[in-house]
Amino acid sequence: MQAVVKTRRGPGGEVKTVPTPVPGDDEVLVRVRASSVCGTDVHLWVWNPWAEARVRKIPLVLGHELSGEVVQVGRAVTSLAVGDHVSAETHIVDGTCYQCRTGRMHICENVQVLGVDHDGVFAEFAVLPERNAWKNDPALAPEIASVQEPLGNAVHSLLPEETDEDLAGRRVLVTGCGPIGLMAIAAAKTFGAETVVATEVNPLRAGLARRMGADAVLDPTAGGAPIAERVREASGGRGVDVALEMSGHPASLQLVFEALTAGGRVSLLGLFDRPATLDVDNALVLKAARVQGIFGRRMFTTWYQVKSLLARPAFREKVAEIITHRVPIPEVGRAMELIASMQAAKVSLEAKW
Amino acid sequence: MQAVVKTRRGPGGEVKTVPTPVPGDDEVLVRVRASSVCGTDVHLWVWNPWAEARVRKIPLVLGHELSGEVVQVGRAVTSLAVGDHVSAETHIVDGTCYQCRTGRMHICENVQVLGVDHDGVFAEFAVLPERNAWKNDPALAPEIASVQEPLGNAVHSLLPEETDEDLAGRRVLVTGCGPIGLMAIAAAKTFGAETVVATEVNPLRAGLARRMGADAVLDPTAGGAPIAERVREASGGRGVDVALEMSGHPASLQLVFEALTAGGRVSLLGLFDRPATLDVDNALVLKAARVQGIFGRRMFTTWYQVKSLLARPAFREKVAEIITHRVPIPEVGRAMELIASMQAAKVSLEAKW
Amino acid sequence: MQAVVKTRRGPGGEVKTVPTPVPGDDEVLVRVRASSVCGTDVHLWVWNPWAEARVRKIPLVLGHELSGEVVQVGRAVTSLAVGDHVSAETHIVDGTCYQCRTGRMHICENVQVLGVDHDGVFAEFAVLPERNAWKNDPALAPEIASVQEPLGNAVHSLLPEETDEDLAGRRVLVTGCGPIGLMAIAAAKTFGAETVVATEVNPLRAGLARRMGADAVLDPTAGGAPIAERVREASGGRGVDVALEMSGHPASLQLVFEALTAGGRVSLLGLFDRPATLDVDNALVLKAARVQGIFGRRMFTTWYQVKSLLARPAFREKVAEIITHRVPIPEVGRAMELIASMQAAKVSLEAKW
Amino acid sequence: MQAVVKTRRGPGGEVKTVPTPVPGDDEVLVRVRASSVCGTDVHLWVWNPWAEARVRKIPLVLGHELSGEVVQVGRAVTSLAVGDHVSAETHIVDGTCYQCRTGRMHICENVQVLGVDHDGVFAEFAVLPERNAWKNDPALAPEIASVQEPLGNAVHSLLPEETDEDLAGRRVLVTGCGPIGLMAIAAAKTFGAETVVATEVNPLRAGLARRMGADAVLDPTAGGAPIAERVREASGGRGVDVALEMSGHPASLQLVFEALTAGGRVSLLGLFDRPATLDVDNALVLKAARVQGIFGRRMFTTWYQVKSLLARPAFREKVAEIITHRVPIPEVGRAMELIASMQAAKVSLEAKW
Repeated sequence: MQAVVKTRRGPGGEVKTVPTPVPGDDEVLVRVRASSVCGTDVHLWVWNPWAEARVRKIPLVLGHELSGEVVQVGRAVTSLAVGDHVSAETHIVDGTCYQCRTGRMHICENVQVLGVDHDGVFAEFAVLPERNAWKNDPALAPEIASVQEPLGNAVHSLLPEETDEDLAGRRVLVTGCGPIGLMAIAAAKTFGAETVVATEVNPLRAGLARRMGADAVLDPTAGGAPIAERVREASGGRGVDVALEMSGHPASLQLVFEALTAGGRVSLLGLFDRPATLDVDNALVLKAARVQGIFGRRMFTTWYQVKSLLARPAFREKVAEIITHRVPIPEVGRAMELIASMQAAKVSLEAKW
Repeated sequence: MQAVVKTRRGPGGEVKTVPTPVPGDDEVLVRVRASSVCGTDVHLWVWNPWAEARVRKIPLVLGHELSGEVVQVGRAVTSLAVGDHVSAETHIVDGTCYQCRTGRMHICENVQVLGVDHDGVFAEFAVLPERNAWKNDPALAPEIASVQEPLGNAVHSLLPEETDEDLAGRRVLVTGCGPIGLMAIAAAKTFGAETVVATEVNPLRAGLARRMGADAVLDPTAGGAPIAERVREASGGRGVDVALEMSGHPASLQLVFEALTAGGRVSLLGLFDRPATLDVDNALVLKAARVQGIFGRRMFTTWYQVKSLLARPAFREKVAEIITHRVPIPEVGRAMELIASMQAAKVSLEAKW
Repeated sequence: MQAVVKTRRGPGGEVKTVPTPVPGDDEVLVRVRASSVCGTDVHLWVWNPWAEARVRKIPLVLGHELSGEVVQVGRAVTSLAVGDHVSAETHIVDGTCYQCRTGRMHICENVQVLGVDHDGVFAEFAVLPERNAWKNDPALAPEIASVQEPLGNAVHSLLPEETDEDLAGRRVLVTGCGPIGLMAIAAAKTFGAETVVATEVNPLRAGLARRMGADAVLDPTAGGAPIAERVREASGGRGVDVALEMSGHPASLQLVFEALTAGGRVSLLGLFDRPATLDVDNALVLKAARVQGIFGRRMFTTWYQVKSLLARPAFREKVAEIITHRVPIPEVGRAMELIASMQAAKVSLEAKW
Repeated sequence: MQAVVKTRRGPGGEVKTVPTPVPGDDEVLVRVRASSVCGTDVHLWVWNPWAEARVRKIPLVLGHELSGEVVQVGRAVTSLAVGDHVSAETHIVDGTCYQCRTGRMHICENVQVLGVDHDGVFAEFAVLPERNAWKNDPALAPEIASVQEPLGNAVHSLLPEETDEDLAGRRVLVTGCGPIGLMAIAAAKTFGAETVVATEVNPLRAGLARRMGADAVLDPTAGGAPIAERVREASGGRGVDVALEMSGHPASLQLVFEALTAGGRVSLLGLFDRPATLDVDNALVLKAARVQGIFGRRMFTTWYQVKSLLARPAFREKVAEIITHRVPIPEVGRAMELIASMQAAKVSLEAKW
């Protein structure tokens, strides 16, 4: 089969012919109908220091976001059949560690990642463990079905645990309008948030944020009142109840706490790459703030929430807008460039080999 | 001032002149701009056995749902000023019992009820404790603002505690489409429920349920498959995640459990008037069901959720549809009749004395 | 190997020689060091109507509570090794249904039960799926390790969900002091409950309840004030915060609600065998009670809680007291009789073939 | 009456005669039987920069921890009577802000503090709002009753919200063994924690930590393996589930995250006085950690939990050990010195004027 392969520990990758993989007893073989590019894929492509430190398996088929059709099932598989349409949860877990045994599989101690530790999905075919294959409505467009995993990140940031207060009537801040931030805006409005304020410097993304339903999109670098004050003003005065940091920018780390109402909660998804400085006393302790680090998405409570969002035509249209570019998969290098240069929000890869 | 007064322990009531009340130190005086009729008011009006057993204060100004304007404030009042628009939380609580001291004021051990234990709001003026006065957006139409309290019941039934799983992506059943059931349907859809199925025998109410956004409205008395089966089919097969019993009908008590998925939750708001029989083993124990009795609404988390719903024009339009009749308050007897005979959903009382 | 086998659809069972089972790829073979008898085993032994309706597999090796040592592991097993000491979670789940995929494996739609649907553990050897094998501290006495599963029922009844209020400072009622009720009393005290009141008619069990740490043990059939009043008095007046129904007696179903404080919660574990009648209005709705049906125990959050209890010497001593009888396994019929006649609390089966 | 008064904006204070205060309608007058010294009192006494910036009212009667007897009640007071024994919740709240109206009174937007914004309790008599007076068991020793407020901080740090996972079976780390840290250790053990590890450099406090029941007390400055590694080892290997930062030391801020298991939770009570630097990516995001800032204690859920702890003789004995010194109140300056120099844990002030 054809696949996008990292053949050496350095920048770039190759489209080349590799053997079609064979599913094990509890795995399925999937024909890939569409895939899409995540920031992680770009890190691997440009081979940044994180990639150098993280990757052990070379050669490696890249990619983890997909939509496909099951073409073969292992003999122990019971919940899937040939012809089923599926997407993938990327986190391959052991099922027996403390986290897995206590309802937190998504932070498995021995997690392995599709397209990082195992061969991925930028290929004609891919193998998925039965547990990681999520059955789709066959009517769902492949390019939409493919982006469910980052959509899961967005939803998980909004609703990290069963125990979290729901969004009904809450005021929400999203800092950073990359694809996941955009999805979070649309999901927050759909789940009943009263007000959603976003921050973003890039005009393309700011425009998309408005189309997602953000009540206000603020540029933190614009002059005028301090940004925290502007966020408070745009969200009704008392501060936001829920803030999602999705930019990885140190100034936004300050902002999510400054704009928060006492007792509010913050989800941190963005990575800062280096230690950050925070006035812990005022940001957190005296404000009785609650912070949740976000890694992956719940397996699979979040996926059911995503499914429900995608059952709404209006929501699907919003997701379609986030996919700003469609690129035939052999031109994957161009897709990487579009994202790295921030000309694109989400890039879909067409299975035209 | 003019007021609707229960002057004797028996059916009916009188529109008559009574002294305008005087607010205490921590109370406000409100000029009533609109009020609305609740089932409780009808019980008091027709003087059923519950009323005979429950009411101690006669004469009694009736009514508890209102929208009004503050015209005088007690000297200890700090959060309200003359000119503020307010509605009322009906539950007057002691603030010092175990429930009040542990975040559950709405089930205060010594709760007293406006229009039952204290003079109510079917009058030109009414007195409210500062704590019970909820500040409205002045732009909110008085007749809409007046029905926030039952809307609070609906929202509280959907989201009884902070700790309850949110509605995002859930399948919901509402049995009984009186005003609160109708409001619950509209609120569930707004808060992100995937599917809402309702049951109702009355065609007027069934029609309204569809306009509220119910995905299916089923008549339990219609022939064909058993109703639990029809609910399952209409909600996607695996059973509903959340069921709201709002009819007070014993058959619906069975239904909410039969239609529930294992581990789902049930809110019980309807009163059955007599002991009910339930197959506790299969309905509850073996299904690991969770049940919540619903009394009032959280003070005031639920009110913030209600406020957020009413900030949405589309939601306000739905509430306006539930108000099927507007009656000048001196004709309150006709309003009672419209509800008792189930010709009306919600009846608004116009302050035209 | 030797095993206790149900050889025909009727009362009793046989100790006979059967082939030693062979573990599959994701299973382990365990040498049984101790087992113990559950009420379910008695139902199967006497072959009551439930057993007739429920059991499909005959011949069937009985039993599901055990402590043993791993003697062989399937080739896909990663978390266990030969020599590990284990007990068993009885619920064999599919891992892919809605419940399993949303953190509620213990109520799997397709659950199968060890010793009911699969050959059980009243044998020299037993096969367990890797997922169902719970690793024990090797220093834990086998007869104690064997009763972890019912201890899990007790703990799960006290703490049904992550989201439930903790027991710190709560007042608890346990109706019915069978083995699980006794364990619940001891666990509630260890988890910080302020007061634990129990009800029981059998003097042996009532005595054990006191030794478990119950602050009061009341006989509902004794004269004097109504039992709900006596429970309130014994628990400080305002009613209990948490009530556990573990008797399956209709009068206790009434009691748990009557004795409950407004807004309290009830766990229902006991089975009533027939529909029960309940004053739903006063028991549940107006009291804003919360009810949780209890089936199994969380996989495996509850097991970690159990492990922590058993790490305390004082708690282990209490569990040892609940095991009132030790019987060599070939005399299993006598063990059944001891339980059926309520002469015993828990009966341990010694692996002396 | 006699009182300890801050008479000028500078170090120290005076014991002098001031008018006995008069309770308002919703207040009570209390004769102080015992009081105790908090770190805040020391800040006010030495008049550090925080005190200079924070205090507006001079002269000011100092102190907020007390035990006393009600000697007069305002005419609107219903829940207290002359002769009742009470302690004080220090946070005087408005009851009408967003936080107060949503069950989070302890972080009231307009909170005022006894002994900081209002005259305090280092006096013969003190006035308390009815809401702030917590009724004690009259048999509780005054010096123990007086320290319930910091004990509330300890319990609130362990159990910040209804929705938090309980402590049953959890592994807990407490960094810093001042009075609140010591109380947290004792409370964690009482609430069923499996293991409690503490860190402390001061040998007096480390010794007390052991007496509180800590399974291990580690000195972070001692040589050997890195402290995070030693904490993991002492707590069973997988990391702690719950970590309480109570030292205000930047190194401990790192430690609580390093020692945490993935998905664990951290409560931050200690103040760091200056911005701190944190590797947010690894500490929080990738670890899916949850952090809760701790301010005050829940009003009054936490107080009920405290009451239950103090109902246990063994727990009361532990609290008595934390009170290392008893000083007649006119020697309050010496009490301040004992704390500032870390020679004392908790200092009780005897009402011997």
